[in-house]
Amino acid sequence: MLILGAGIAGLTAMYELEKAGYHCQILEARQRPGGRNWSARRGTSETSLDGTTQTCQFDPGLYMNVGPTRIPQHHTTIDYCRALKIPIHVFNNQNADAYYYFEEAGPLSNQRLRHRAVQADARGYISELLAKAVNQGALNQELSTSDKERLIDFLRTTGVLTAQNKYGENPDRGYRRGNEPVAGDRPGIIDAPYKLSDLFALNDKHTFNLGHWIAFEHEWDQAMPMFEPDGGMDRIPMALVNAITGPIHYGTEVTRIENTAHGVRVSYRDQHENTSQLEADYCICTIPPQILKRIPNNFPVQVQSDLAVPVPVNAGKMGLQFQRRFWELDDRIFGGISMTNMDITQILYPSHGYLEQKGALIGYYAFDIQADQLGALKPKEREQHAITQGSKIHGTVYRTAFESSFSNDWRKTRYSEGAWVDWPAHTQGPNSPYARLLQPVGQVYFAGDHLTYTIAWQHGAFEAARKVVMDLHKRVVAS
Amino acid sequence: MLILGAGIAGLTAMYELEKAGYHCQILEARQRPGGRNWSARRGTSETSLDGTTQTCQFDPGLYMNVGPTRIPQHHTTIDYCRALKIPIHVFNNQNADAYYYFEEAGPLSNQRLRHRAVQADARGYISELLAKAVNQGALNQELSTSDKERLIDFLRTTGVLTAQNKYGENPDRGYRRGNEPVAGDRPGIIDAPYKLSDLFALNDKHTFNLGHWIAFEHEWDQAMPMFEPDGGMDRIPMALVNAITGPIHYGTEVTRIENTAHGVRVSYRDQHENTSQLEADYCICTIPPQILKRIPNNFPVQVQSDLAVPVPVNAGKMGLQFQRRFWELDDRIFGGISMTNMDITQILYPSHGYLEQKGALIGYYAFDIQADQLGALKPKEREQHAITQGSKIHGTVYRTAFESSFSNDWRKTRYSEGAWVDWPAHTQGPNSPYARLLQPVGQVYFAGDHLTYTIAWQHGAFEAARKVVMDLHKRVVAS
Repeated sequence: MLILGAGIAGLTAMYELEKAGYHCQILEARQRPGGRNWSARRGTSETSLDGTTQTCQFDPGLYMNVGPTRIPQHHTTIDYCRALKIPIHVFNNQNADAYYYFEEAGPLSNQRLRHRAVQADARGYISELLAKAVNQGALNQELSTSDKERLIDFLRTTGVLTAQNKYGENPDRGYRRGNEPVAGDRPGIIDAPYKLSDLFALNDKHTFNLGHWIAFEHEWDQAMPMFEPDGGMDRIPMALVNAITGPIHYGTEVTRIENTAHGVRVSYRDQHENTSQLEADYCICTIPPQILKRIPNNFPVQVQSDLAVPVPVNAGKMGLQFQRRFWELDDRIFGGISMTNMDITQILYPSHGYLEQKGALIGYYAFDIQADQLGALKPKEREQHAITQGSKIHGTVYRTAFESSFSNDWRKTRYSEGAWVDWPAHTQGPNSPYARLLQPVGQVYFAGDHLTYTIAWQHGAFEAARKVVMDLHKRVVAS
Repeated sequence: MLILGAGIAGLTAMYELEKAGYHCQILEARQRPGGRNWSARRGTSETSLDGTTQTCQFDPGLYMNVGPTRIPQHHTTIDYCRALKIPIHVFNNQNADAYYYFEEAGPLSNQRLRHRAVQADARGYISELLAKAVNQGALNQELSTSDKERLIDFLRTTGVLTAQNKYGENPDRGYRRGNEPVAGDRPGIIDAPYKLSDLFALNDKHTFNLGHWIAFEHEWDQAMPMFEPDGGMDRIPMALVNAITGPIHYGTEVTRIENTAHGVRVSYRDQHENTSQLEADYCICTIPPQILKRIPNNFPVQVQSDLAVPVPVNAGKMGLQFQRRFWELDDRIFGGISMTNMDITQILYPSHGYLEQKGALIGYYAFDIQADQLGALKPKEREQHAITQGSKIHGTVYRTAFESSFSNDWRKTRYSEGAWVDWPAHTQGPNSPYARLLQPVGQVYFAGDHLTYTIAWQHGAFEAARKVVMDLHKRVVAS
């Protein structure tokens, strides 16, 4: 078996095929395994498609996950962590004390707002308004008398309303900083809720508005708890590499893929610019479609046009090393995400290394247009941009405690040219380009998260590889 | 300085006083430090006030935290973990895939319901109902036109409503088990929402109803992220013990406390039934009020009556060791809490040892009446009760994979006689019994979480100790 690509899909295909007794080898264009599963540490060096080279200067022990950020507990990724004995810990995808920071969104703009205060107020006002409407009889057609009683009791409890169904100051929204309840005669001071009009002005027509960010925390793939491997996301490809025995040929760029009468022939160029060929009975190709469509092949025309359908989506991240974990010390934020409609989009505080002195956080994790705008800057310009916007949330410490950065733009990343793909409307489903690419082309099988319903997740890469291995094995057994 | 009690308050007082140069010693009735901060492991043995002895049989490496369960990121406890170099990790206080299980609560009774499904449906119906009321003009007095637009957009986003503001099946509520989205032609299957009437029937007048449990996750002291020390909550008292130099006299029961002309005299009985006396300039007494009120003393009558005011509250926990982490393997639940109105009240899945083979979960964590009922049973009866009720949620594996249990009832625990105290209405605040006990009685200072506004939290014990140390130091400096 010849596998193209040593990302999660390619490595998993090899791991599973070897368990079933097949001999495999992998051609990998990069000098490392993992594909988009990539963690940057001291010495990590990368030259982007625009020719810019960055070398990570983080202190030993600090790292950033450049690609996948987190793992939901229901993903197959967790099962591979178990099988490969990769210890995991919780990734804080949610933090009641992280901040929202919105610009041009009404009276609460340009200030940092704790998640818990905003969320408690939103729940409280919604509960108060609905209780009032119910008691006015506005929903008598929808609700029976007992529904109404139970609903209002529910709203009172979860919205923290008074016995008169009024929302007001309450501990859920948090205490004033420095005035938390402690010993003696200090029961704590709570500020009054934000005004209803001001609060919902945060939900005005921005790409990343309040509703977007609150909804995010409840998503199927994002609800807590989430996980990450101890020591970096790339512990996963490293463990897969350790678990397989066949060779991985690094630095080999595929230049042609051909079905032959009884197998597959793949041409490739190695790091010394020598071109060679490998032949195999079957090939599993995990090269992203936006790259694959440019590689010469003898596939049918339909396959070639189907490969051009999925649209690469961009995402970019920057890791920022600080000499002091001010977010833990000053803000009492241990992991989690501050969210904004500035183009840094979000700041992710590390869910590892708690209580240590230094730390690397994610200074931006941006998508689409925001990612393209940040990616268009040179690394130093990105750094200044991230620090300027981050300082609006965290103040001068964001500048004074800063030490070094490392950033990546997936659209400009050689061999990826995108963070993931999007299937345009009606191109994924029965009788679609997506459906056709699920079928082998001669002896060539396609695999990757792009051929799943969990795009942009390692789960997709694992599941796509597992599916193709099953398909292939059935065919071999039947032949 | 003489300190009575080597719980968190007593140890912290000693730690801080020693940093300030004072010589201290502690009298501790138990044979171990920590007080209610106590973790049970293989060999942990305890005889309760009713004479029953249990010895923990857990496998090496497994443990249960019998007392404090979790630490919010804003608590002083975190600062002591930093100072004492105690590594911490996230305690999952929230898990979208944990279960609700209610009895006698309508059509959804007697079945396990995933948190995410129930919570998504509650949000969805509330959003749909409020959007409808708003669009009918029922809240025109409360909302401006732009408020209404933004609110409805917010409801549509966070409630996952259709463009027609209808709630229906959506991924937030989760996919049918075994039909999650994967590779190929499997986009996943989602079940229809629960009926509105059925859903809110879960909120009927039970002590632990749906609203109670949903509100819990948003509380000031309970919102994610929460933390626990690596290796057990008792790493905290162990680290404090290692950080102090003065002696701790274990097995010494205080039998009398007296203010003298220039100091304090404390009589105590040691483990050999010998009675001795210690004299000191000052005394910090961290003995819980329900115990202290019975110890002979020469305090004013008012102090004696004030000590009788706080009411001990009961809580009880049972750890259950299983040979297989079925909650991770079968239920895909990694940490978090399943909640019920059965008297086990909740099942807490461990937030440590993920992916390992065996594990110990908390099979019940009950309060008040529920705790008293469970505590009234003998350990083996409690075990059977916990397994019977837990099996309703987890099926036969809860019986077949079970290996051993360890349980504790704080009301029946010698030297504690309660999990924490409750100050009845109007007894905490200015000019109250609480306020009077904040003042020293001669040379005796009282400290403990009971003298704070964060009762039942280690934070309270830390803060109470810090306050008393400050008060005492000021007095010494001024004298």
